[in-house]
This record gives sequence, structure tokens and C-alpha cells, in this order.
Amino acid sequence: MNEFKVLEIKQSVFSSNDREADRLRAELKEKGVFLLNLMSSPGSGKTTTLKRTIAALKEELRIGVMEADIDSDVDAKAISETGVKAIQLHTGGMCHLDADMTRQGLEGLNTDDVDLAILENVGNLVCPAEFDTGAVKNAMILSVPEGHDKPLKYPLMFSIVDVVLINKMDVLPYFDFDLEKCQNYVHMRNPKAKVIPICAKTGDGMEDWYQWLREQVSAWTEA
Amino acid sequence: MNEFKVLEIKQSVFSSNDREADRLRAELKEKGVFLLNLMSSPGSGKTTTLKRTIAALKEELRIGVMEADIDSDVDAKAISETGVKAIQLHTGGMCHLDADMTRQGLEGLNTDDVDLAILENVGNLVCPAEFDTGAVKNAMILSVPEGHDKPLKYPLMFSIVDVVLINKMDVLPYFDFDLEKCQNYVHMRNPKAKVIPICAKTGDGMEDWYQWLREQVSAWTEA
Repeated sequence: MNEFKVLEIKQSVFSSNDREADRLRAELKEKGVFLLNLMSSPGSGKTTTLKRTIAALKEELRIGVMEADIDSDVDAKAISETGVKAIQLHTGGMCHLDADMTRQGLEGLNTDDVDLAILENVGNLVCPAEFDTGAVKNAMILSVPEGHDKPLKYPLMFSIVDVVLINKMDVLPYFDFDLEKCQNYVHMRNPKAKVIPICAKTGDGMEDWYQWLREQVSAWTEA
Repeated sequence: MNEFKVLEIKQSVFSSNDREADRLRAELKEKGVFLLNLMSSPGSGKTTTLKRTIAALKEELRIGVMEADIDSDVDAKAISETGVKAIQLHTGGMCHLDADMTRQGLEGLNTDDVDLAILENVGNLVCPAEFDTGAVKNAMILSVPEGHDKPLKYPLMFSIVDVVLINKMDVLPYFDFDLEKCQNYVHMRNPKAKVIPICAKTGDGMEDWYQWLREQVSAWTEA
């Protein structure tokens, strides 16, 4: 094997977003609103997963969805067709949402009649992980075609999430994806993260995810 | 269909990076070095595509590769095994490289004996598109599992690239991916972008890509 050099390039530093996020969470607690922040790469299946989740849970929970995107309306259109409240957030090129941007979204959505608010973050495994949105829990989707090595390459994202959905399990036979390795890598970054293999397209494995989500919402809104 | 609101959130503004990028390009021209900036989502196959490209071209061009990553060394390790010069750039959490960071990388790589320098940018469809790295040409990979709608959702990325490689064509039968639609969406953003369907794993379609790259390098270094 050949040698290679490692060069460290400097990082930016972020300041008081954490305080804003804590304040937003306290207000959500007060109002009895559970906010889920859903993150992933582009094309991992966030919207498909949400659509199926909404169909399964909309009779038991009042759901509202914020779709963050650079500038298209594709996702909010898809979500609004499920019959729940949806709002499109245009980030104007921004690669993430912070707590203040999320607050703007929640105000735009109006959470007076919402139990479960879901933020579909910008498709990106880097920036969204750096900013606490004020969400009660953070979920991410990693899809089989992306490869099982992603927890090695996007460490921060995997270290801050409460649950990792491994999506597109239906195409496992066509990819060199090692589920056990992937789970080990996730737990290396984050021993407490729950890993749930799913297929949002067929519905396989989704019941475990719904159950996790139900429990989180109850714990937050009833405590 | 239900209604949804669209809320515009404010964007940051970037300043003199463009000047830095032009300066870097002029220096590369002077030295006869062609710099390619390769971008994509996480897991689209940048490293696999590069490995095969290097194997095909390393007898005719002196190649050097810069692997930008948040903090792993996985990719530089893979590239260095091909026998060409490789350097790992750790961005310390940064979601992109600008011209100054790229310059640091080129100095670390040392391009005195390099005809073709390749920057494998951070896996991200948002931020890298916002910063001119000083590259002569910009390439991106969109893989079939990500979906044909990505040019609609990541407009800036598709508008700034010279070539779009549609990777993982071998799994086309297992996904709802419409190649013609995808090509139309790419050309809607960017009529001049060349679209090349490939499979980096099997090598299918790669000859068109090599040929494009050869022509670009010749045009730059011989003019």
C-alpha cells in the first residue's frame, strides 16, 4: 500500500444556537408538541418514509410536517397529498436548519392542533448534524445503496441521532451492503442509537419504527 | 390536493472566493495542471469511479488525488492502493472546500509531477456547489438509487457542473428511475452539461467518460 499525507484544514465555530434550541424545546414541552428532526443524504427515502408513517399514524396523532428544501416544492406537495398539514421551507441555498429557522417553520406551520411535528431537514449528512434544531429526537435514514461505511465517514451525524432507519432493504441482494457491519459502525459512533432496518416502499419493518415513534411522543407529551 | 405554504428563509452571502478561484486556475494553467472537482451525495460511488478511472488512465496521465472528508481516511487509503499519489484532506467538519482550502490541498499533494489533479469533494449536493474550488472542470455523480428528481431539488449543483455521470446503471431494473426524465431535468438546469450513464462497478459506459476527461485535459494543457 502506498503512503498518503493527512492535512488538517480549519473548522468554523458556532455559538449560541444551542441555547436557542433548548429554549425552543422548553416551549414545545409546554405546548405538548413533539418535534422530530429527520435527516439523510439526498435520495435516501425521507419523503417516502414520511408518507407511509403518516398513513399509519394519522388517526392516532395530529401530525404536521415541515419540508425543508433549497428551493423546490416537490416534497411538500407529496406530503400535503396525505391529508396532513404541510409547509415547505425554502432555505435559500442554506445546507441546514438551525433552531431559529426551525422556529420560523413551526410558526408558519402553526402547531396549536399538532401533537407530532416533523422536520424533514435538507438532504445532507454534514451540516444538519452541526445544528441543534430544537427537536426532541433526531432520526436519520441511511439507505442500502449508500453503503455500510457511512458511519465512518460522517461521524457527527451518526453520533447525534437517536434512531437510524436502514432503508431500501428490498435491494440488499444487489449491493455490497453488510448490515451487521453497518450496525457495528453505528454503535461505534453512538452505542445508544437504535437501528431499524426498513423498506419504506413495501412497508417491511416499519411497525418497529412506528412503535418507537409512538413511545417517544407519549413519553414527551404525557410526562 | 391540500394546500401548503411556502416560507422563504434567508441565505448567507459569500464574497471573494471567486477571485481566489480564478487566481488558482491561472496558476494551474501556468503549471500545466488540470484540476477536476468531483462532487456527489454520500455513497454515489465517487471513490469507485475514481479507482477505475485511475486504472484506465494512469499510463497516459500523471494523476494525483485529493480526498476531502470530514475526518476518515477510508478513501485516500483506497486511492493510494491504485499506485497514484493521494492525499487525504480533513475538513474538520466543514461541508465543502473553497479555493483557499483546495490550494492547501494542492500544495500538500505537490503537483510538480502531476498532469491531472482530482479533488474528491465532501459528499454533499448543497455546499460544494456554492464554492468555486478553482477547478478547471466540475463533475458530479448522481446514482440511480437516489432518484431522477435530484436536479429539481439541488438546482445549483446541477447548474454548475460540466458533466453528470449517472452511476449504478446496473441496478436500474430495481428502482423507479427514469433516465430520460433525469436527462431532461439536468438539461433544464444546465443545457450544456454532458450526461454519461455509467456503472463504475462493472465498467459499463466508462469509456465515454475517459474520453471526455482526456479531451478536457488535452485542451487545457496543450492550449
